[in-house]
Amino acid sequence: MSLTKIGMAAKTAAMYLNCMDVSKKNEGLFAAAQALLDGEKEILIANQADVSRAENIGMNPALIDRLMLNHQRIQDMSDGLLQVAALEDPVGEVLSMKKRPNGLLIGKKRVPLGVIGIIYEARPNVTADAFGLCFKTGNAVILKGGSDAIDSNKAIVKCLQDGLRKAHIQETALQLITDTNREMTRRLMQMNEYVDVLIPRGGAGLIRTVVENSTVPVIETGTGNCHIYVDETADLSMALDILLNAKTQRIGVCNACESLLVHKSLAEEFLPVLWTALKEKHVEVRADEYSCRLVPEFSKASEADWGKEYLDYILSLKLVGSLDEAIAHINRYNTGHSESIITKDYEHAQRFLNEVDAAAVYVNASTRFTDGNEFGFGAEIGISTQKLHARGPMGLESLTTTKYIIYGNGQIRG
Amino acid sequence: MSLTKIGMAAKTAAMYLNCMDVSKKNEGLFAAAQALLDGEKEILIANQADVSRAENIGMNPALIDRLMLNHQRIQDMSDGLLQVAALEDPVGEVLSMKKRPNGLLIGKKRVPLGVIGIIYEARPNVTADAFGLCFKTGNAVILKGGSDAIDSNKAIVKCLQDGLRKAHIQETALQLITDTNREMTRRLMQMNEYVDVLIPRGGAGLIRTVVENSTVPVIETGTGNCHIYVDETADLSMALDILLNAKTQRIGVCNACESLLVHKSLAEEFLPVLWTALKEKHVEVRADEYSCRLVPEFSKASEADWGKEYLDYILSLKLVGSLDEAIAHINRYNTGHSESIITKDYEHAQRFLNEVDAAAVYVNASTRFTDGNEFGFGAEIGISTQKLHARGPMGLESLTTTKYIIYGNGQIRG
Repeated sequence: MSLTKIGMAAKTAAMYLNCMDVSKKNEGLFAAAQALLDGEKEILIANQADVSRAENIGMNPALIDRLMLNHQRIQDMSDGLLQVAALEDPVGEVLSMKKRPNGLLIGKKRVPLGVIGIIYEARPNVTADAFGLCFKTGNAVILKGGSDAIDSNKAIVKCLQDGLRKAHIQETALQLITDTNREMTRRLMQMNEYVDVLIPRGGAGLIRTVVENSTVPVIETGTGNCHIYVDETADLSMALDILLNAKTQRIGVCNACESLLVHKSLAEEFLPVLWTALKEKHVEVRADEYSCRLVPEFSKASEADWGKEYLDYILSLKLVGSLDEAIAHINRYNTGHSESIITKDYEHAQRFLNEVDAAAVYVNASTRFTDGNEFGFGAEIGISTQKLHARGPMGLESLTTTKYIIYGNGQIRG
Repeated sequence: MSLTKIGMAAKTAAMYLNCMDVSKKNEGLFAAAQALLDGEKEILIANQADVSRAENIGMNPALIDRLMLNHQRIQDMSDGLLQVAALEDPVGEVLSMKKRPNGLLIGKKRVPLGVIGIIYEARPNVTADAFGLCFKTGNAVILKGGSDAIDSNKAIVKCLQDGLRKAHIQETALQLITDTNREMTRRLMQMNEYVDVLIPRGGAGLIRTVVENSTVPVIETGTGNCHIYVDETADLSMALDILLNAKTQRIGVCNACESLLVHKSLAEEFLPVLWTALKEKHVEVRADEYSCRLVPEFSKASEADWGKEYLDYILSLKLVGSLDEAIAHINRYNTGHSESIITKDYEHAQRFLNEVDAAAVYVNASTRFTDGNEFGFGAEIGISTQKLHARGPMGLESLTTTKYIIYGNGQIRG
């Protein structure tokens, strides 16, 4: 199908979904969840084709693992849809309603965004996840997955559409672009007439490409150069626990800590202890000159290290002379994701919360908590690192917009 | 000054404004308002240079009128800043604060966007308006006005900066790009490192250029192909009043009515009366075939007319057979701005409110009310016709974002 036809079908589906009752939407989610289970065999066969191709081109094992599906992963996708069905539907809520002096009653109502385009990479489970969240909020979705997962994605979408059909819902609520030509992606990014928002999900390269080439509004997600600052008054044992958690509990995630700032006065006491703990976890430390003198096993950081999201067993480390210096360093090098201060000082805690510019700013906690589930949203479409529309973990509400509804009785403007 | 230096200075100013007390910000606004009055002579001299240049190149009188300043207009700019000072500051409000089962206290706080770029055209009063709204919400602003108004803009910015200095506030809170080279504008649109959001203010061409060339997130404002639908059960006298108001009360504005839909059953009764009234206001009507048969003075509409924002004494007119047809036509041709139904039918009113996709949807009122002041916001930076971040008239809140602030006591993720 041509991209224009996909766009038109999505716009039509969006108008139809816009007014759908939540019970009907949940029926669709239940049916789609069941269809994934019923289609397990077909999905696994398709996935095997993707995995074989990946092995033949020598894809790295970690990526192949992301690509691979099995009984449990299909079960998880299906369960994910049921969980979304259980969430409250934000659509239709009237956020305010006020009468103006001229008698006009002006209400602000939460409505679906319309058509959402999701551009993502290798993980085929994103296909079901993204569908579930967009569908629950009454949006039509156009998916453009990575070419590596194309067979799996086709099989998953076929199941989900089968489910929708069984629930007597237009299957164009969900469409997959099957043409893996990059030109298609480029055109999708400029289809302002049909697409209301694009959400890229994947690595920094993908996100940059979408931000640079899209004329459709984008919600930028994901990259995190997250800092932990150990303040002069920090409880050092808490600082160590939090740093180890944020750095090593999961390496490849955007809310992992990539850079540690330590107040100079703590260096001699804290750095050796820190190194003992990090060495055990096989974490390489790239540090400033003075730190390297204290712990010769540290390697020397270059300027580029301060801005890096390693997603690896590497940590950059810098000593700072003051809270001001820590805040200035973070605001210069961070990606606006998650930042944490470890301190016992009330004023320092407040200043850090106020002055650090990021989606999530913590006192005495691990940056790893920046996550829709940890924040209590029940689901997450991604973590926004931009300031427009949504910032931080994005739950169902971030897939909605508002509309003014105005009740008059003949008012004209004087 | 180079654009990079402007960007860096703006980012520094934004961090400084971020934590400024509202009383200090108001002091800055008072001082800037006074400085405009004090600088009237210099502003008028500069403006005269712009106006002379415009006359020499034969600019059309309506545009010269937009460009021209006088005592009253400078007074109005100054008063505008005082009005903004009187508004409540949305920054700092904590929108929610919840304790998670692990003891983390997660709050969502309203904060400034950071650095806002405003790209606008001929009207120099936008310079003071945009500064006032951005400054009140703690944002640094980079202005890029039209080259036609460059001397006026320079003089106005100089006054505003003088005011800030007198209030002991960094004058880089407000910067004007004085290089009128278009390449500068293009670079501003891609300065993601320093600019958090761009708001274009002006005609459809300017807005399209910004949307198409910007990698910085944009809030699209302005174009309005607004419809009024006269439903089968409409009070025809109300319909006529509202249509005349929406079409002719002010011609060149985005919330003016450009297209009228009338239920077929009303055509013979309503169209002649409508024509009598419109003729008096010198409005040309471009209509479908059947309407042209009923009123031979109508000219025939082409397909292009349905999508047009005339901003002129022209109205397109189409008869429709049903509410469904009216809604489908509007959703196909509108620009997502303002739409109104005139009806006595409860179900039709509700369906129109629910199914029409626009920022503001009215029952029995003029589309002209889509305006920050009419909505009770006290000010307006523009009217968003996109769905991300802000939709409809944008008050002070739309110049803010949120930030999660998280209070912990050693939490790590399991």
